[in-house]
Amino acid sequence: MPSKPLLAKTSQILYGGDYNPEQWPESVWEEDVRLMRRAGVNLVSLGIFSWAKLQSDENTFTFEWLDRGMDLLVKNGIWVDLATATASPPPWLSVRYPDVLAIDADGRTYYHGSRQHYSPSSPSYRKFAALLVEKIASRYAKHPALVAWHINNEYACHVHNCHGPASTEAFRAWLQKRYGSLEALNNAWGTAFWSQHYYDWSEVFTPRKTPTFVNPCQQLDFQRFFSDALLELCKMERDILRRITPDIPVTTNFMSFLKPLNYWDWAKEIDFTSWDSYPDPLPGQRGDLVASMGHDLTRSLKPGRPFVLMEQCTSHVNWRPVNATKPPGSMRLYSLQAVARGGDGVLFFQWRQSIRGAEKFHGAMVQHAPAEKSRVFQEVCALGAELKKLGQVTGSLIRSRVAVIVDWHAWWALEMPSKPTEFNYQSSVAQFHRYFYENNIAVDFVTPDTNLSSYALVVAPTLYLLQEKDAQNLDAYVRKGGAILVTCFSGIVDRDDNVLPGGYPGYLTKTLGLWVEEWFPLGLDEKRIVQFGKGKKLSARKWSEVVHLEGAKALATFQEGYLKGRAALTRNSLGKGEALYLATELNTKDLSYFLDALIRDIDIKAPLSVPTKVEVTLRENGKKRFLFLLNHNKKPVRIDLKKNSGLELLTHKKIKRQIQLPALGVAVIELD
Amino acid sequence: MPSKPLLAKTSQILYGGDYNPEQWPESVWEEDVRLMRRAGVNLVSLGIFSWAKLQSDENTFTFEWLDRGMDLLVKNGIWVDLATATASPPPWLSVRYPDVLAIDADGRTYYHGSRQHYSPSSPSYRKFAALLVEKIASRYAKHPALVAWHINNEYACHVHNCHGPASTEAFRAWLQKRYGSLEALNNAWGTAFWSQHYYDWSEVFTPRKTPTFVNPCQQLDFQRFFSDALLELCKMERDILRRITPDIPVTTNFMSFLKPLNYWDWAKEIDFTSWDSYPDPLPGQRGDLVASMGHDLTRSLKPGRPFVLMEQCTSHVNWRPVNATKPPGSMRLYSLQAVARGGDGVLFFQWRQSIRGAEKFHGAMVQHAPAEKSRVFQEVCALGAELKKLGQVTGSLIRSRVAVIVDWHAWWALEMPSKPTEFNYQSSVAQFHRYFYENNIAVDFVTPDTNLSSYALVVAPTLYLLQEKDAQNLDAYVRKGGAILVTCFSGIVDRDDNVLPGGYPGYLTKTLGLWVEEWFPLGLDEKRIVQFGKGKKLSARKWSEVVHLEGAKALATFQEGYLKGRAALTRNSLGKGEALYLATELNTKDLSYFLDALIRDIDIKAPLSVPTKVEVTLRENGKKRFLFLLNHNKKPVRIDLKKNSGLELLTHKKIKRQIQLPALGVAVIELD
Amino acid sequence: MPSKPLLAKTSQILYGGDYNPEQWPESVWEEDVRLMRRAGVNLVSLGIFSWAKLQSDENTFTFEWLDRGMDLLVKNGIWVDLATATASPPPWLSVRYPDVLAIDADGRTYYHGSRQHYSPSSPSYRKFAALLVEKIASRYAKHPALVAWHINNEYACHVHNCHGPASTEAFRAWLQKRYGSLEALNNAWGTAFWSQHYYDWSEVFTPRKTPTFVNPCQQLDFQRFFSDALLELCKMERDILRRITPDIPVTTNFMSFLKPLNYWDWAKEIDFTSWDSYPDPLPGQRGDLVASMGHDLTRSLKPGRPFVLMEQCTSHVNWRPVNATKPPGSMRLYSLQAVARGGDGVLFFQWRQSIRGAEKFHGAMVQHAPAEKSRVFQEVCALGAELKKLGQVTGSLIRSRVAVIVDWHAWWALEMPSKPTEFNYQSSVAQFHRYFYENNIAVDFVTPDTNLSSYALVVAPTLYLLQEKDAQNLDAYVRKGGAILVTCFSGIVDRDDNVLPGGYPGYLTKTLGLWVEEWFPLGLDEKRIVQFGKGKKLSARKWSEVVHLEGAKALATFQEGYLKGRAALTRNSLGKGEALYLATELNTKDLSYFLDALIRDIDIKAPLSVPTKVEVTLRENGKKRFLFLLNHNKKPVRIDLKKNSGLELLTHKKIKRQIQLPALGVAVIELD
Repeated sequence: MPSKPLLAKTSQILYGGDYNPEQWPESVWEEDVRLMRRAGVNLVSLGIFSWAKLQSDENTFTFEWLDRGMDLLVKNGIWVDLATATASPPPWLSVRYPDVLAIDADGRTYYHGSRQHYSPSSPSYRKFAALLVEKIASRYAKHPALVAWHINNEYACHVHNCHGPASTEAFRAWLQKRYGSLEALNNAWGTAFWSQHYYDWSEVFTPRKTPTFVNPCQQLDFQRFFSDALLELCKMERDILRRITPDIPVTTNFMSFLKPLNYWDWAKEIDFTSWDSYPDPLPGQRGDLVASMGHDLTRSLKPGRPFVLMEQCTSHVNWRPVNATKPPGSMRLYSLQAVARGGDGVLFFQWRQSIRGAEKFHGAMVQHAPAEKSRVFQEVCALGAELKKLGQVTGSLIRSRVAVIVDWHAWWALEMPSKPTEFNYQSSVAQFHRYFYENNIAVDFVTPDTNLSSYALVVAPTLYLLQEKDAQNLDAYVRKGGAILVTCFSGIVDRDDNVLPGGYPGYLTKTLGLWVEEWFPLGLDEKRIVQFGKGKKLSARKWSEVVHLEGAKALATFQEGYLKGRAALTRNSLGKGEALYLATELNTKDLSYFLDALIRDIDIKAPLSVPTKVEVTLRENGKKRFLFLLNHNKKPVRIDLKKNSGLELLTHKKIKRQIQLPALGVAVIELD
Repeated sequence: MPSKPLLAKTSQILYGGDYNPEQWPESVWEEDVRLMRRAGVNLVSLGIFSWAKLQSDENTFTFEWLDRGMDLLVKNGIWVDLATATASPPPWLSVRYPDVLAIDADGRTYYHGSRQHYSPSSPSYRKFAALLVEKIASRYAKHPALVAWHINNEYACHVHNCHGPASTEAFRAWLQKRYGSLEALNNAWGTAFWSQHYYDWSEVFTPRKTPTFVNPCQQLDFQRFFSDALLELCKMERDILRRITPDIPVTTNFMSFLKPLNYWDWAKEIDFTSWDSYPDPLPGQRGDLVASMGHDLTRSLKPGRPFVLMEQCTSHVNWRPVNATKPPGSMRLYSLQAVARGGDGVLFFQWRQSIRGAEKFHGAMVQHAPAEKSRVFQEVCALGAELKKLGQVTGSLIRSRVAVIVDWHAWWALEMPSKPTEFNYQSSVAQFHRYFYENNIAVDFVTPDTNLSSYALVVAPTLYLLQEKDAQNLDAYVRKGGAILVTCFSGIVDRDDNVLPGGYPGYLTKTLGLWVEEWFPLGLDEKRIVQFGKGKKLSARKWSEVVHLEGAKALATFQEGYLKGRAALTRNSLGKGEALYLATELNTKDLSYFLDALIRDIDIKAPLSVPTKVEVTLRENGKKRFLFLLNHNKKPVRIDLKKNSGLELLTHKKIKRQIQLPALGVAVIELD
Repeated sequence: MPSKPLLAKTSQILYGGDYNPEQWPESVWEEDVRLMRRAGVNLVSLGIFSWAKLQSDENTFTFEWLDRGMDLLVKNGIWVDLATATASPPPWLSVRYPDVLAIDADGRTYYHGSRQHYSPSSPSYRKFAALLVEKIASRYAKHPALVAWHINNEYACHVHNCHGPASTEAFRAWLQKRYGSLEALNNAWGTAFWSQHYYDWSEVFTPRKTPTFVNPCQQLDFQRFFSDALLELCKMERDILRRITPDIPVTTNFMSFLKPLNYWDWAKEIDFTSWDSYPDPLPGQRGDLVASMGHDLTRSLKPGRPFVLMEQCTSHVNWRPVNATKPPGSMRLYSLQAVARGGDGVLFFQWRQSIRGAEKFHGAMVQHAPAEKSRVFQEVCALGAELKKLGQVTGSLIRSRVAVIVDWHAWWALEMPSKPTEFNYQSSVAQFHRYFYENNIAVDFVTPDTNLSSYALVVAPTLYLLQEKDAQNLDAYVRKGGAILVTCFSGIVDRDDNVLPGGYPGYLTKTLGLWVEEWFPLGLDEKRIVQFGKGKKLSARKWSEVVHLEGAKALATFQEGYLKGRAALTRNSLGKGEALYLATELNTKDLSYFLDALIRDIDIKAPLSVPTKVEVTLRENGKKRFLFLLNHNKKPVRIDLKKNSGLELLTHKKIKRQIQLPALGVAVIELD
């Protein structure tokens, strides 16, 4: 495992935030850089929403103010992650070229006046975005401040579809490429149902308003198309940037489990991943859990590369009904959690809090209150100082022996209407992630076609859509000694949302050693008892089904009614490995009971045994191992380090046997 | 009472389902008919969504595949209820003739991509639908498989209005026919209110989006118009079919209490009624109750004719949030309930479960699991065998001495906004139907202009809109010896939703022997005590009012506040009969207390006294009487037959004195 | 204080209602005036929805029927508040001039068929409305019945915005006038944020549908514009009326706290204020409280002038889900409450209950039941007789020593999205009004730029937006000896919704003697303990914050977590006065605890100490004082008058020492 910094110029943890100097008179900029230096900032994301200020008509560009900003920053030792500024087109563009505006399924136009109102298939948007990127890249290609490119911003944050003429044409072209012939599309979409047969490509539309359920494969393909249409934009920008600045890495800020974008496809096209993390700090919302899942996803999307936490908030956001403020100490803990889970950068939205516009109540590194008198700015400075001590951590990685499968196609297909019951893919995945997070077992997210050989356990929650080749990959993994756990309503349909004939769960029946005849979904208030072997009674919900064992053995059985005595949880020995199947949904506590037993069997362990609510991770490079200990408790804890010892990097103290962490405290130990 | 089979060719209970062979390669068809024979299927509904496969442009029709299907079926002894295939126009039609597409009140277009997106007033839709029906009818007029026509499918299931230019024109034409002059319309609609006077027909629109309440008579007429506009389509098809095949009966599948369609008008235009029954099998949802009301309505719509249960599900549907599966035995019980309440056919949607499209998770006679290994298919076969034993039941009828008035005009008018409180017509009707269902008293639904002389009791729940001639019909019924029970907020308006002057309840004041001065609607959580005579205290809700007795006597009185001592329930002796009035709403248990007393008085009885949750019905023809006993309990019951004896048709056993029914068990006894 | 009647011709309490004779044959009119005389009616509002009946095309007017109505009324001693009839344009107008129709943010058109569907910026609407007003005013200028003009009706009751081309143009013109230059608009709107810079006025739109939060100042200006656009219509009508009938006073009926209209601006443009009061009579809804706040606002809008209760209901409305009926005695109590709080007129919607149209179930002075047999009409007659006894009260006023600030700009700005938490301006204001109402302390509503010198206490609830000049007004008020209480999230932004730099609460920091560093909004279920001095613990919710005292003293402190010991309630002595600040929200009971202490300090008292739920007010003119006592209890109360004595006007009895009021009883004592 080689240690390689994200950016060519640095082996520091990146620290800073979005910087929008165009909102302020230049007199404020000097104060900004003074405070940035004090805070230890080494990177800012610049120009994300600057299009309107950079270009006033088709031919007129104004870069001078940005030149001055770039010069000032680099003069003060601050690098720039320079945005391509395409996220929000200026009003003049959509007024002169109305095809820029996105149109929803009801035919309603999204106007300018907020942000991100463009249609990804608009020829005018594409033309002028490309021109802008060309201009910016050419102008700053050699600027010493430039260390990374920030393409666009939070793609698909607001607009999840467009049904205008250009999008309709683009969708048809995408389908022609995918299917080759109309006959293939008719077959995949099952247009024999409900009299939907297409005789000409011009008859095919995006899924607009209809009287009832739209053809599901049409919807599925539209979700694929839309992710691809935005990715085309991203690639268009990247190609320009790579041509002009081949050595500057590009990223675009992801948003964790954002349904509209298949980030697996996206991550391949950029140089490093980054994401924006906004867990709700309201008591009881478990922000640490939500954030940890985003870190693990973002890290997993680009294996072997650390990621950047591109945006988070120092205090509170402005877009929830109630926007709770992170209490003192919490921002530091969230920040170091990002590093603990594989991040090499901790940035914020934004540097200086706006006083105008829709986000003026979104917290910042410099808030409305005078910086010198501000608790928040004090914490920002303290964190900056601490991160400087962790430079050697950069480039180190996390090794996971557990993987959870996440597949956007399965997600999209699962959550379309007219299913046996209402599934929520993300919460199915989260239930398993939570178990591993709370037990301090490193976990990767993977696609079903990943080479899984390095994992001891793979979990596939509700993998409703599964292609044959991917099922074969899972089967091979088991036969070679892997353990897989599949949960109910997996393997139901193929690539085109067509049900696999011959009994559920389709291509997985042999792997799992069983087939499922029929389902008995449960009412929202219904519960079922499932007995684990001869012992513990577990509480199941949402789903039950009739499993016929063909080789697998029942580990647990339903206890009531028609399903009494039938398998609820099974294990199949296959080759050198084993395949487990959960034919219902367990509550979180009872799932833990079962998973505890499972990981004991497979010999998967946390790096260290710690009190509850203490997070433990291990980052490694070829030479060193860094043990992160994060206390999410509001009281101090004492941790028994067993045989571990080393240098605590934040305090620069040698540590042996045990360590005391204050409330919300963190330790980073370079292990001996 | 003559026994006359629904279809010329059969005196069997019809058994089968929707069959969509176009979704499958022809190789599957052979397997289909093999399994159909095994299941005892004798009828399938064919071609309901075949338009796109039958016609590829204005002039090109492709019937060969359907020919082969028809031939294969009849060769195997299976008859065909052939669809006119007009329910879902093909994409090419709406793309080439955009007037086909319906438009909602907000101006949003319904596109193709699901089903039923047509505007009923579209000239293009009408033209091409007529052409298609002509082609199909001509081609299959003499085909030996053809026994019935299935016009369109579930009219108004999804699209309940259209406001496009063609609909606007058609609405104006409908109004011109209804009112003759604009002045008459202005008067009926009360356009002197809110400055709505029309000076030209071109000023009259369908009730589109407005700032607040639309003119209520405009809305009411639009609901009438829309039901009529769809009925025009149905009659257009029927006229073509009758011209070409005068001997083949036509039907269209109804949907029980479907508000947009005035089924009383519709039933007159078809040869036999049929309906689609999808009660929710989730525990606690009382699917048997919901289904029984649909059977009783569908039977009542066409007096003297049995009906067909055209669609139901073997297991589970796919369009609810949670789609529970019918437990073993339940599908049989629901099926025999249809026969018990006057049905001569039991069909399913659909024969073979789809693997593509929006309904692939809707259960079927042949499910995704291999038929031979499927519980569901075993139950399908067993039911088919049982139904063969009930052939002689066909054509027999149910005699009811109780009628409940159901009037679509009253329903539409009642549920428009800006009423004293929010009424729900269907649940008012259902409260009374439930009483009679649970007490095994046969009940018909009737219109207020029905000849009521055969009934001992007529109930008119919340008959808000009532024409003078209909009120006279009710009055005459009472004077000749009938008993009527009217509930609150009846008789308020005339045909045009205009309040009747001179005190409520309008034309019924003399019949009821009272008038009502004013209303005191109750809050959602408010309760009132009503004392029945000097005895029982009943719990009233939703409504109270000031009744002035003018001949009637108070049976029960309010006990609180300003209404203390005033009548809540009255009886008026009139001629040979009596008219009762309920000036509030009782909870279900307290309503039973009152109705128990009432039917005792009138001497109305169930055919047999049975344990709770055992359903009893009696079907009769000129010669025979068939006693149906259905055990809805999950445990066995013993039933005392008293003096009844006869032949149990399912087991072919002689029965005397008593019979034991297993959980969910059914007996059909041909009485001696 | 001079006593001046509202209308030149009368020193009677005005009594009557909306009269719509066009809904009835003229034969009914004679009966109407007979009953009006019997009821004591002296004023009707005529012709409010008569446009369609008065004008049948661009050039044809039909006034004859209205002439006859006016003549008949005046012949019977009934005056007319004549409407300009512009509230609901006739169908022919919007069909021939479609620019009349309003269009919503989604681009959907509001059609005719209900009422108020016009766009305020429509040139055609403006042209034809002006023509109509000119015609009506000219025709009736000298008619002896005419005593007041009723402009339009309930402006903005339904349509709160329009985004059609004419509205877009008008919005641009309004902005050009406001800002002078685009650069000023760009600065005020903060268009540097999210790339919204405008280079040409044609790029500026009304805030239509956008992907996410619209620019907040754009929204704020649109709300200002829309209030102004409707006010322009009102002024256009008024100017015509004043030109033709300079001596006839004009009004338009307000609707209390109607967010779309800044009534402070409106009240300046009319001669007397009037409003429509429809509190929900359902038990538990506290209709008296809601009505009292509307009376106090309407009175405050035009200081020194009584107001008219232009509409209320005798019994029940028709537009709520459940429309409860006012119980006997309640209508009288609500009516006399209006007089008690400064009203010189008590009118109803409407005289005779409609039998057609959307409001036929809205109660009236003459209901559906025959008038002679109707409880409601009896109460109407009794009230009419009583009001005749109160003629000398007209013109007298209410003196308040307490004021609550209400500012529409602050309201609009506060309730736009993306705030720290969700505030409700009206309920913040209502919490304080309720306290003063329940303690019988007269209270005025005022703007922040009012001369406050006559008040002993001013409350400013959540005055989020505050201009510097207004803050200076408040500061000066305090320094001269006033007491002000400001609550949290006040003073945050300036006129353009731009945050004030240098710590919250902006321009008020010096006045309050503190500054606020940051906020900790609370979750919906979160509570905080606040300790008042060393004593009582109060329960706080919704909000907490970090207050830094700079001169102020803490009266109460937070007790938990990071805020433990920090100020929750402060007092700052400034000049001769004091400024209090509440840094959280208290529940109603705990707020009373604090306010009880505060008003004791400031020596504010009720006119009389009375049992709970007895309302006391005092109206005065230069010579006389009228003490109103209203018993809202459902049982009698005895009231100790202390040293007060006088003549009870309703019974014409001398009263001394004490008085007994029956349930819902009222006394009006002309004090000696």
